[in-house]
Amino acid sequence: MSNHMPKKNLQVSDFGEKKLIERIAEKSKDFELNFDNNLNSYIGDDAALIDFKNNFKKEKSYLVATTDLLIQKYHFPPEMSFFQIGWKAVTVNVSDIAAMGAKPLGILVSLAIPSKLSIESFDKMIDGILEACNYYKIPLIGGDTNEGDEIIISGTALGKVQQRIAKKKHGFEIGDKVAITGQLGLAALGFELLKKENKEIIEKSIENKRISKNIVDLSIESALNPKARLDKGIILSEIASSCTDITDGLASELYELFNADKKFNKDNNLGIRIYEDKIANEPLFNEMYNLSKILNKDIFDIIFHIGEDFELLFTFSNNNENINVDELSKNLGFIIIGEINNSNRVEIKYSNGKIQKLSSKGYEHLSND
Amino acid sequence: MSNHMPKKNLQVSDFGEKKLIERIAEKSKDFELNFDNNLNSYIGDDAALIDFKNNFKKEKSYLVATTDLLIQKYHFPPEMSFFQIGWKAVTVNVSDIAAMGAKPLGILVSLAIPSKLSIESFDKMIDGILEACNYYKIPLIGGDTNEGDEIIISGTALGKVQQRIAKKKHGFEIGDKVAITGQLGLAALGFELLKKENKEIIEKSIENKRISKNIVDLSIESALNPKARLDKGIILSEIASSCTDITDGLASELYELFNADKKFNKDNNLGIRIYEDKIANEPLFNEMYNLSKILNKDIFDIIFHIGEDFELLFTFSNNNENINVDELSKNLGFIIIGEINNSNRVEIKYSNGKIQKLSSKGYEHLSND
Repeated sequence: MSNHMPKKNLQVSDFGEKKLIERIAEKSKDFELNFDNNLNSYIGDDAALIDFKNNFKKEKSYLVATTDLLIQKYHFPPEMSFFQIGWKAVTVNVSDIAAMGAKPLGILVSLAIPSKLSIESFDKMIDGILEACNYYKIPLIGGDTNEGDEIIISGTALGKVQQRIAKKKHGFEIGDKVAITGQLGLAALGFELLKKENKEIIEKSIENKRISKNIVDLSIESALNPKARLDKGIILSEIASSCTDITDGLASELYELFNADKKFNKDNNLGIRIYEDKIANEPLFNEMYNLSKILNKDIFDIIFHIGEDFELLFTFSNNNENINVDELSKNLGFIIIGEINNSNRVEIKYSNGKIQKLSSKGYEHLSND
Repeated sequence: MSNHMPKKNLQVSDFGEKKLIERIAEKSKDFELNFDNNLNSYIGDDAALIDFKNNFKKEKSYLVATTDLLIQKYHFPPEMSFFQIGWKAVTVNVSDIAAMGAKPLGILVSLAIPSKLSIESFDKMIDGILEACNYYKIPLIGGDTNEGDEIIISGTALGKVQQRIAKKKHGFEIGDKVAITGQLGLAALGFELLKKENKEIIEKSIENKRISKNIVDLSIESALNPKARLDKGIILSEIASSCTDITDGLASELYELFNADKKFNKDNNLGIRIYEDKIANEPLFNEMYNLSKILNKDIFDIIFHIGEDFELLFTFSNNNENINVDELSKNLGFIIIGEINNSNRVEIKYSNGKIQKLSSKGYEHLSND
């Protein structure tokens, strides 16, 4: 195929979600000069940072604003209750506030609801929204309801963060460590476990003690009742050099950090290296490995390419004398998985020592040749 | 019908949009005490007002936040271009900022888009969003894109307003005048004009000089390219005692003011009286009256019960010595349509002198009645 395909036949589906956002960001540049713009972020970071300029007294703060829209068919599997749907809609938005290291100010929630939905289900969805707001201590400050063919929940979370500690996707330096706030992959395993066709084999495997009931319960809990890492985000804001939340799989988010850095530092050669064995070294990993085998899934593929865990991915300087990394790591339960190097790419070092560019799509196991 | 119907069979459609929002607001009260809440508004006003507390230097300001979700089938008639769809989505959100008397800070836009939508149409929709942002001088600061069955645009507009001039739906006093910023009904007429079945009769009526081409063009322009009254909102913020934007018809918005006042002043007997002849006295009215007759519509029904004009409805004290009302009215083109009295209801005085409670059946999605 040549590069001269007629462009007019292109559909939205020919672009990924992120490419569409980039397209919007590119177009919006034409207008930016026309505003007295207080914006201190770019479209594509977890949230917008707005400078209130001369209005703050002591410490300069940013208003943090982020929006996420969830559609029943794509974001809420049929196993989710209405309560859990409401809970998740708040969680995905609060997660972006957490990724900026910000404190929550309030959330607005717009709903599209089928007119035939029972008021009982509607109430449960609202209860889920409000219980999540209560959990994260973020008040519901506004909203909108409309009739729609399917359930759609669009949230906008607002937060506040001191300017000096606001965490963007860029900002890391050579030698910085790369870490995550907890084990990845549980939620994705949970969604697999919820599928009807897997019910029997899972019950048998628990009976046979091939897997524990604990890992099954933990996975399902991670899938249905996800938690944004708001408290960890606030603690990390004091030490991290960059941060994002992991909603689309680890690989995708590593590339988010890599590309964000390139946006601001075109000529540097910063890259990210992560280690397969550091990801495979956590207490839960063996059980997750067994569980994914039973489900006929690849655990690395799940960790790298399916998200929904809402753990945070962050970088931090190893040379900060004020921080005892080992202690923090233990207290916060975070896992160091790699470091910033000068490879100018995102790469993975496999357990057998081979180093390779990390695929942004499927997990490529090392061939034996 | 009795009040003892089994509640479990109730559907969302048995409640109006506004009743659902009230239901959410009522539920959210259970949690409010749990927050260190900076909220200075209630769910149901045009926008949320958030107090940044001790952080502001000179004049205390509110952060203003509002969200509106638009669904292709219900909010975008087939005659609308993709550009106009994008424009309108920004306008409805900015209109709520205008109603608070606030200045725009930024807007976030979440999209659901069918995967088969051409990238050309997508681009035009984005152009509409960005051109509207440029028109209102409100930067696009964030967003989200998702695949959906139909086009859905959820916007969240942020603004800033000095606390002393922030305009809520309540706050008026006895004797205050009730006014609108311009002629109502044009947009609704425009949507009627756009219907295929009306094309022939309209062309003939222009030929016969029963109506002017001017009123036809003006109506269609109001429908397809609506403008939020941001500048007027900012000017009004200095003089108005309350304000809201008219999106659901005049009757519905008058009841919004009336009910907002009752929320805060349960025991007063404030009411609103408007005058039919003041609404029917504007230069455009006769032409609109003729046009609606040709379309087999009632012009008052359109004005009272169909919205989309985005004019502002506001109250102001007649006793403010610093304000020359006649001059302001002329300069801003606003129309005084009534006053606050002690009738404890919303009432209309007809041209024939009869005074009656105003029917509240405005345009409400989701409602069966």
